[in-house]
Amino acid sequence: MNEIYLDNSATTRPSEAVLRIMEKTLREDFGNPSSMHRKGVEAEQYVRDARKILSRILKVSEGEIYFTSGGTEGNNWAIIGGAMAQRRAGNRIITTEMEHPAVAEPFAFLEKQGFEVVKIPVDKNGVLDLAAFREALTEDTVLVSAMYVNNEIGAVVPVEELSALIRQKAPKAYFHVDAIQAFGKYRIYPRTAGIDLLSVSAHKFHGPKGVGFLYIRDGVRTLPLIYGGGQQGGMRSGTENVPGIAGLGAAAEEAYTDFEEKVSHLYALKERLRDGLSAMDHVTVHGLPGREGAPHIVNAAFPGVGAEVLLHALEDRGILISAGSACSTHKRAASPTLSAIRAPKKEAESSVRFSFSEENTFEEVDETLKALGELLPVLRRYRAR
Amino acid sequence: MNEIYLDNSATTRPSEAVLRIMEKTLREDFGNPSSMHRKGVEAEQYVRDARKILSRILKVSEGEIYFTSGGTEGNNWAIIGGAMAQRRAGNRIITTEMEHPAVAEPFAFLEKQGFEVVKIPVDKNGVLDLAAFREALTEDTVLVSAMYVNNEIGAVVPVEELSALIRQKAPKAYFHVDAIQAFGKYRIYPRTAGIDLLSVSAHKFHGPKGVGFLYIRDGVRTLPLIYGGGQQGGMRSGTENVPGIAGLGAAAEEAYTDFEEKVSHLYALKERLRDGLSAMDHVTVHGLPGREGAPHIVNAAFPGVGAEVLLHALEDRGILISAGSACSTHKRAASPTLSAIRAPKKEAESSVRFSFSEENTFEEVDETLKALGELLPVLRRYRAR
Repeated sequence: MNEIYLDNSATTRPSEAVLRIMEKTLREDFGNPSSMHRKGVEAEQYVRDARKILSRILKVSEGEIYFTSGGTEGNNWAIIGGAMAQRRAGNRIITTEMEHPAVAEPFAFLEKQGFEVVKIPVDKNGVLDLAAFREALTEDTVLVSAMYVNNEIGAVVPVEELSALIRQKAPKAYFHVDAIQAFGKYRIYPRTAGIDLLSVSAHKFHGPKGVGFLYIRDGVRTLPLIYGGGQQGGMRSGTENVPGIAGLGAAAEEAYTDFEEKVSHLYALKERLRDGLSAMDHVTVHGLPGREGAPHIVNAAFPGVGAEVLLHALEDRGILISAGSACSTHKRAASPTLSAIRAPKKEAESSVRFSFSEENTFEEVDETLKALGELLPVLRRYRAR
Repeated sequence: MNEIYLDNSATTRPSEAVLRIMEKTLREDFGNPSSMHRKGVEAEQYVRDARKILSRILKVSEGEIYFTSGGTEGNNWAIIGGAMAQRRAGNRIITTEMEHPAVAEPFAFLEKQGFEVVKIPVDKNGVLDLAAFREALTEDTVLVSAMYVNNEIGAVVPVEELSALIRQKAPKAYFHVDAIQAFGKYRIYPRTAGIDLLSVSAHKFHGPKGVGFLYIRDGVRTLPLIYGGGQQGGMRSGTENVPGIAGLGAAAEEAYTDFEEKVSHLYALKERLRDGLSAMDHVTVHGLPGREGAPHIVNAAFPGVGAEVLLHALEDRGILISAGSACSTHKRAASPTLSAIRAPKKEAESSVRFSFSEENTFEEVDETLKALGELLPVLRRYRAR
């Protein structure tokens, strides 16, 4: 059976270029970048090359890129390290009601440390309440964190508007952007966008798991999360994950090659799926259409059918999707995003996420719609009995 | 030119079994372990399998194994998380003068947070002062951390003696062991040895970089270092690095297969090198011979020859060694271990480390000794002019 993988926001298939460079660094160039001999120098070169690729893509300096073990570490470091370093400057930290747990939980930790946490609400489409955001910004706000692309419904925050407001009303605040679902789908230029800290994970765009990076703007003071041998300027110690970092570099390079075509294809896939779903009875599509939302995420509720039941019914036909965000092991826990958009219970219970990579095809979307068309009446009848 | 790699304490070449399982998880079984469909379940199985292998090797429960991004994260988590969780129980934390920066720096961080740090001295062979250790233990000691095998000279701490003293004099203290140079070289059973926390890094025993694990004994309270989606029981969030974890499991399995033979071979290599070095004029071998020291590390000073000069001269002959620990980017900084053993300046400046894996041969040792025999007079004469 042909497999149709529509869970690319959970993780993606590493590309051939990623596999190739990882194998080379594992099999041949396996040195420790801190070793002084040639195997160390060779290994270090992979780290330098990846840093160069990323800094070119973001139009930042190489010294502003710090490799991490992934998006969660990046978010923790940016939020905890950024807020703690600014502790004396103020006590307020701001985020949104619609964040990934890798942002929400570090905020909960900081709240226990005595920070005042403000969470900005979103509307039913996941659009941030800009008036409330503006209102919340104060002189003693030291950190703001917002998710560029929401991982469940693909809502997008207006990054530049937020940074303009921050600069105006909370000049001391660092602006952290969780770009884990956005990198590779948007052109992101932290300097012109006014972003101080930006976290990215490789495995969301055909790179390997276990690696990512945090952009830290020159001049931003953060505390390290991990101390030790002084690698990465003492900001993130530990022997560099050379294969992972090399794979991250290769994946980033590819993501921004033929970028417009890929993104257009993603939008076309999204619209085809949204149109097909909207034509069905008793289906609610969450999030915004077209360029108002992210290119690769479609979330829909099928009231009367449990999300898990639908997931497994589609799985039987080789179609792999997600119920909830798949970024949490609380697999059955309520979705933070669907709570934030106040989705009614019968919608929240029956919501699934389809997420694309540029490798997906129109035929796959059509096959998915066909399968849904056949399955939904059966599943609903079954449920009704 | 044949390469003789004698820098295995810096990092090792990943084995074929490691490469195979990593390729499989990258190419085919690339799912996110948190996904509910079969690709998620398959991916999760690799994580379970690795946990099973490690718990069997250590004779602990599977639930006591937590995957990390490597040894440095493990040390930070154990030390900072363990001390912070015990903050109300007492204020004293103890370590030795001869630790890796991945232990020394978290202690420095905790000292700034108000903890009282006590560092136990070692003698000229790196042997811990047990009387001073016993003396330092108090009722309000909440954490003790010691390095099983020192990374620079191969000194070994008497883990069971330390844990017996801790239980007697500091019953509230958690005992953390940095086993990064020891795992794969010693049979380690945390329960019988009285170890509460044990950190391990995969790339020191033919596993991949960027992954390791922390053993946390059931009942030990630690704060997470990284918060988020709730993976690994909420103690270490973030999508699991499946290829890395699978590689770690494969490497651990291999390390403890034909274990006695491998360790005997390492000791034989060590003794052959030590004997050859001791027969040379003006060479000081650091650390203890035979089973009194670690099997895979030989550190020696060649007064009159700069360590870096010697390193590069050997490199020209294809022999790769280390000056300092190679675990730090402060490549020219003073060695913490050589300071701790009070090595005279002319020794410290001329000390290099040879470190073996079981793949090294007697012929390689002989060739290294031959190269040293030829190079040293030349380098000394050159220096003298």
